[in-house]
Amino acid sequence: MRILLANPNATAAITDTCAALARAVASRGADIVPWTNAGGPAVVDSFYNDYLAGAALCRGLSALDARPDAIVLAGFGNYGTAAVKEMLDLPVLNMAEAAMACAVPLCHRFAIVTTSPRMIAYTEDVVQTFGFAARCVTVRAVSLPPIDGPAPSDDEVVQRLAAETERAHASAGADLVILGGSRLSPYAAALRRRTSLTVVEPVACSVTLAEAFVRTGLAQSKVGKFAPPPGFASP
Amino acid sequence: MRILLANPNATAAITDTCAALARAVASRGADIVPWTNAGGPAVVDSFYNDYLAGAALCRGLSALDARPDAIVLAGFGNYGTAAVKEMLDLPVLNMAEAAMACAVPLCHRFAIVTTSPRMIAYTEDVVQTFGFAARCVTVRAVSLPPIDGPAPSDDEVVQRLAAETERAHASAGADLVILGGSRLSPYAAALRRRTSLTVVEPVACSVTLAEAFVRTGLAQSKVGKFAPPPGFASP
Amino acid sequence: MRILLANPNATAAITDTCAALARAVASRGADIVPWTNAGGPAVVDSFYNDYLAGAALCRGLSALDARPDAIVLAGFGNYGTAAVKEMLDLPVLNMAEAAMACAVPLCHRFAIVTTSPRMIAYTEDVVQTFGFAARCVTVRAVSLPPIDGPAPSDDEVVQRLAAETERAHASAGADLVILGGSRLSPYAAALRRRTSLTVVEPVACSVTLAEAFVRTGLAQSKVGKFAPPPGFASP
Amino acid sequence: MRILLANPNATAAITDTCAALARAVASRGADIVPWTNAGGPAVVDSFYNDYLAGAALCRGLSALDARPDAIVLAGFGNYGTAAVKEMLDLPVLNMAEAAMACAVPLCHRFAIVTTSPRMIAYTEDVVQTFGFAARCVTVRAVSLPPIDGPAPSDDEVVQRLAAETERAHASAGADLVILGGSRLSPYAAALRRRTSLTVVEPVACSVTLAEAFVRTGLAQSKVGKFAPPPGFASP
Amino acid sequence: MRILLANPNATAAITDTCAALARAVASRGADIVPWTNAGGPAVVDSFYNDYLAGAALCRGLSALDARPDAIVLAGFGNYGTAAVKEMLDLPVLNMAEAAMACAVPLCHRFAIVTTSPRMIAYTEDVVQTFGFAARCVTVRAVSLPPIDGPAPSDDEVVQRLAAETERAHASAGADLVILGGSRLSPYAAALRRRTSLTVVEPVACSVTLAEAFVRTGLAQSKVGKFAPPPGFASP
Amino acid sequence: MRILLANPNATAAITDTCAALARAVASRGADIVPWTNAGGPAVVDSFYNDYLAGAALCRGLSALDARPDAIVLAGFGNYGTAAVKEMLDLPVLNMAEAAMACAVPLCHRFAIVTTSPRMIAYTEDVVQTFGFAARCVTVRAVSLPPIDGPAPSDDEVVQRLAAETERAHASAGADLVILGGSRLSPYAAALRRRTSLTVVEPVACSVTLAEAFVRTGLAQSKVGKFAPPPGFASP
Repeated sequence: MRILLANPNATAAITDTCAALARAVASRGADIVPWTNAGGPAVVDSFYNDYLAGAALCRGLSALDARPDAIVLAGFGNYGTAAVKEMLDLPVLNMAEAAMACAVPLCHRFAIVTTSPRMIAYTEDVVQTFGFAARCVTVRAVSLPPIDGPAPSDDEVVQRLAAETERAHASAGADLVILGGSRLSPYAAALRRRTSLTVVEPVACSVTLAEAFVRTGLAQSKVGKFAPPPGFASP
Repeated sequence: MRILLANPNATAAITDTCAALARAVASRGADIVPWTNAGGPAVVDSFYNDYLAGAALCRGLSALDARPDAIVLAGFGNYGTAAVKEMLDLPVLNMAEAAMACAVPLCHRFAIVTTSPRMIAYTEDVVQTFGFAARCVTVRAVSLPPIDGPAPSDDEVVQRLAAETERAHASAGADLVILGGSRLSPYAAALRRRTSLTVVEPVACSVTLAEAFVRTGLAQSKVGKFAPPPGFASP
Repeated sequence: MRILLANPNATAAITDTCAALARAVASRGADIVPWTNAGGPAVVDSFYNDYLAGAALCRGLSALDARPDAIVLAGFGNYGTAAVKEMLDLPVLNMAEAAMACAVPLCHRFAIVTTSPRMIAYTEDVVQTFGFAARCVTVRAVSLPPIDGPAPSDDEVVQRLAAETERAHASAGADLVILGGSRLSPYAAALRRRTSLTVVEPVACSVTLAEAFVRTGLAQSKVGKFAPPPGFASP
Repeated sequence: MRILLANPNATAAITDTCAALARAVASRGADIVPWTNAGGPAVVDSFYNDYLAGAALCRGLSALDARPDAIVLAGFGNYGTAAVKEMLDLPVLNMAEAAMACAVPLCHRFAIVTTSPRMIAYTEDVVQTFGFAARCVTVRAVSLPPIDGPAPSDDEVVQRLAAETERAHASAGADLVILGGSRLSPYAAALRRRTSLTVVEPVACSVTLAEAFVRTGLAQSKVGKFAPPPGFASP
Repeated sequence: MRILLANPNATAAITDTCAALARAVASRGADIVPWTNAGGPAVVDSFYNDYLAGAALCRGLSALDARPDAIVLAGFGNYGTAAVKEMLDLPVLNMAEAAMACAVPLCHRFAIVTTSPRMIAYTEDVVQTFGFAARCVTVRAVSLPPIDGPAPSDDEVVQRLAAETERAHASAGADLVILGGSRLSPYAAALRRRTSLTVVEPVACSVTLAEAFVRTGLAQSKVGKFAPPPGFASP
Repeated sequence: MRILLANPNATAAITDTCAALARAVASRGADIVPWTNAGGPAVVDSFYNDYLAGAALCRGLSALDARPDAIVLAGFGNYGTAAVKEMLDLPVLNMAEAAMACAVPLCHRFAIVTTSPRMIAYTEDVVQTFGFAARCVTVRAVSLPPIDGPAPSDDEVVQRLAAETERAHASAGADLVILGGSRLSPYAAALRRRTSLTVVEPVACSVTLAEAFVRTGLAQSKVGKFAPPPGFASP
């Protein structure tokens, strides 16, 4: 089974990190094939970059050499997810929706922590678009520096994540937290040591859920919303 | 990896059928351990039997000989799911919530077909309780005879399921259908040959999702809703 | 008119307290018949005990010697309320839904104070299940000790209730508070002396509303959700 | 106990009919005091007449000779209900909200049948304003002639009501119907003979619920929404 | 083009202020015709005065000498808006709904600041009635003195408005604020100098939107909710 | 005042048609500057083309020669609207949100008719994203041929629009219809002759509302969701 792990931004280092997280949970027979959206922006940090990323993603994924068994879109956002589901007739799974789908049975109310205050509104729209607003009780943010800026120490990031997690619990009643950005995924293990809330790391969720779809023969329905675009020649 | 497949009703034949469906999708390393709720009713066909099933289920699952890695509750209902999540600190997944969690990324709006008209209200409550009302566009029913009555022919059941699926599509815009009862699960393959909508079969969804939880180390959060019951000695 | 006041837990002292509250508001012709769920848990303080209570309640109420004119379920929770409504063709009223039904015309937004922080999520589910989420603005908790532990002084409990009531008003805009547990009902009178918010005590609400149902000839509809369970012989 | 039964329109014949329905269910000690809104319109059949009725109602009820123990507003609409609750510090209960509060514990989903197609939107707003939209599944209408027109035969009205009730059940899943207009209340008994759905007649509900409020000492909260109007001298 | 600017209260000074704000934004060809609801209360500061204002407004506007091209109802409330829309077949626009309609495309979530704490619940009902609850994240209040009391200094009012605006942003995530009362409209310009949030002043919104309706030939639909009241002779 | 009328697709004929509709309602001082998204697809008929259109639109609008006073995005969809609002600090108004903002005060419930059945789900998402789901009662479709196919006669299109409008009224209670596609806008006048429902044509709404924004000095809030993208040099 081949699962294409498509990073919607152009930063190969993030792709690599996500691929490592994916391989750590993939079952024996599942090959993780990393793919970077070379035509996209360095990071999806705005609606503007969401659209640039999405258009490049559509173009890139319609020109794949080999057909995988499933595609995981490894960014915590929208960036044309429905467009990719339209284009392709193999299972396409966005890691944000996978994380939220997994979170629902595991909690009463979940929180999302995103990478910067300006992404809170964006993330709230993602939650609404993907249909999970009834259970998401708050979206909060740490403040990662720009992707090409000086990196904060791991400890500092984890401390901030733990602080926001605690606030989500104390002030909004969240009992589970989702890491809302691929740049945050590497901190999941360390965050788990600092909080008693369940921590959902979206790469792992989406890869294992994509496997589940392949094994059960499920893919997005093609009879309505995700029917092929008119005139589009499926690759 | 051992996954306990717990049938909330007392009908061993249904357990067997579900176990077969489960094994067909489980990965190599996953053992499916069937378990029948011997103290429960023959079928969960009312709120009354929901409560009798749930109480027996709680008692039964607190006295397991060996600790599995995860438990799948293989009935399309509620029957004390939150109680089992409270009692245990290993992943517990109800097949109704697993099916809906899987359905959301695969469709615009889903329908559920249940086993009798009297279960429509019950099922609407299940959808609401598990947090998926925003995407469930209609609950419809076929009319299976009582579990100890004469069985209709497979063809007749599939024809009814196909008819309700078509109505859910035409009148409510559903593009995916969930089989809302373990007695309906065996008809999934045949129904897929009769409809172009995506058909979600909950046993397969829940088993593969439970595997995903085990592999990613996720379980229900124990810091709030699902904290152990006061005074309860975890088995 | 005979109104059975059914305490869903097995603690007879709570039944007695509720019966006293009930008799204080019942009209001349209404007999309050106390009934304790001897087969249930000592208190409904978890989903686990909710299911044990509910199953015992169903069994107990299906074996009543004499048919009352109405049944009040005197616990602030779910514990199989829909199952009892299915079983019986006389008016069945849960004191939580009665309290919320009465609260709606009396306020802009109501709060509920429950008996322990772990019951907040449980109570939020009860509010949702019974259909009153649009008006319930917050669920808060005092921390009663276990039912067999040392009792706090009345004054201490009332002080905590008053403090949570004040917080519900100041931080969430509640103008009415519902006492969300039969163990809290006895403090209603004292709490009213400490707050200007309207205080709803559920036992009194449910008994007077049950009388109203008897006098107007109303009972739960038997044509859908609450139709008799298949094969169930109505007592 | 004196319950003022205030008809928001100026048609004394409707007041009389409502008073008869009220007395049929009132308990021994409850006096029903009929009151007609002489300054209001003949019927509340539009938003326009809703406002004229409400302003006259406010003026009329602020000049009562004797203070009753509770006031029932016996029209199925809004017509300044919140204004009356502000003005007075005794329990004020609108029969539409009383009917819906009673309906919720008795059904899965309720329907309302109103007196003319043009009142459907008006009634939907009433349902929303009073906080019961989550459970009201449809508003339908019969077509009563103008109040000063030739009256249809009783049989014809009941037949129409039964037909709309059946449609609400078959097409929208309602299992209970509320008669949404005081002109419809007299047909409740006859309608019950024609349908298996529970029929809620609002006058009876509101009178018995008002009694319940008096007996339990409840009235609308005066700390927020229903605080006395600035400068208003309470009568 | 003649736009009648109808102040629902009887205070001519407020009418004058609103007219000045209206003229400042009206296009060349648009005449602003101020109109004061002489039969109404001095200010709409309660549900009680809302109904008195609305009834007088209906009577007043049904007796206009000359037919304007559109009517703007220049009060931030309800006061019979639907009744006026029923009565007339020219565009009728309430400044609260105009302000919210304009706010939605300009923000993620908006706040409203009203004139006194007791108007918060009233204003929340207005938001719900006019259909904008999904985007209104909080209603807050300053405390203007009674209309015939000593006026606070402009600076003091603006400072309070700025403080509440800041709280709406910091605690609830609002990025736009609507001034929720005609007495607050004159402070819009000064408030804009104190906050970086977008400030929506309803008089300007409603006048320019009314112009838009006239130019595009739009008016409220007369086929349902706003059909003429039965027996009403359109002026 | 210069209003840029930006067609998100690449079909200049549609731009021309929209410009004509815009000029017919623009006030004397408002110049309509048509702009075609030359880098976009011929039509936005899928999520796929939505993303291609949006990315091209962002690039195109960031390279305008002259700064207009406002921008109207003249397509009934999403196609990066939030991205354009982020990029620019002048008022940006999508014609779908303008149409819905205008519709709310004019009706009880509105319907949208879109250009093909496959766009129903897409349009429902647009309604949700823009915040108007509470008032949109149904989305229906006519079936326009592909943009490069043989055009149906005007009469045929109008007849289909009238038929869907009638269905939206009869089956869902809509009292206003919005034409949900720029290809449908030219039929507004003819449709109005065939239906008594109010017909909202989005180009006219958005142009006049954009004028209103310019005249009142309003633009999207730049303090949250629509803050400039990080590192983006505003043009």
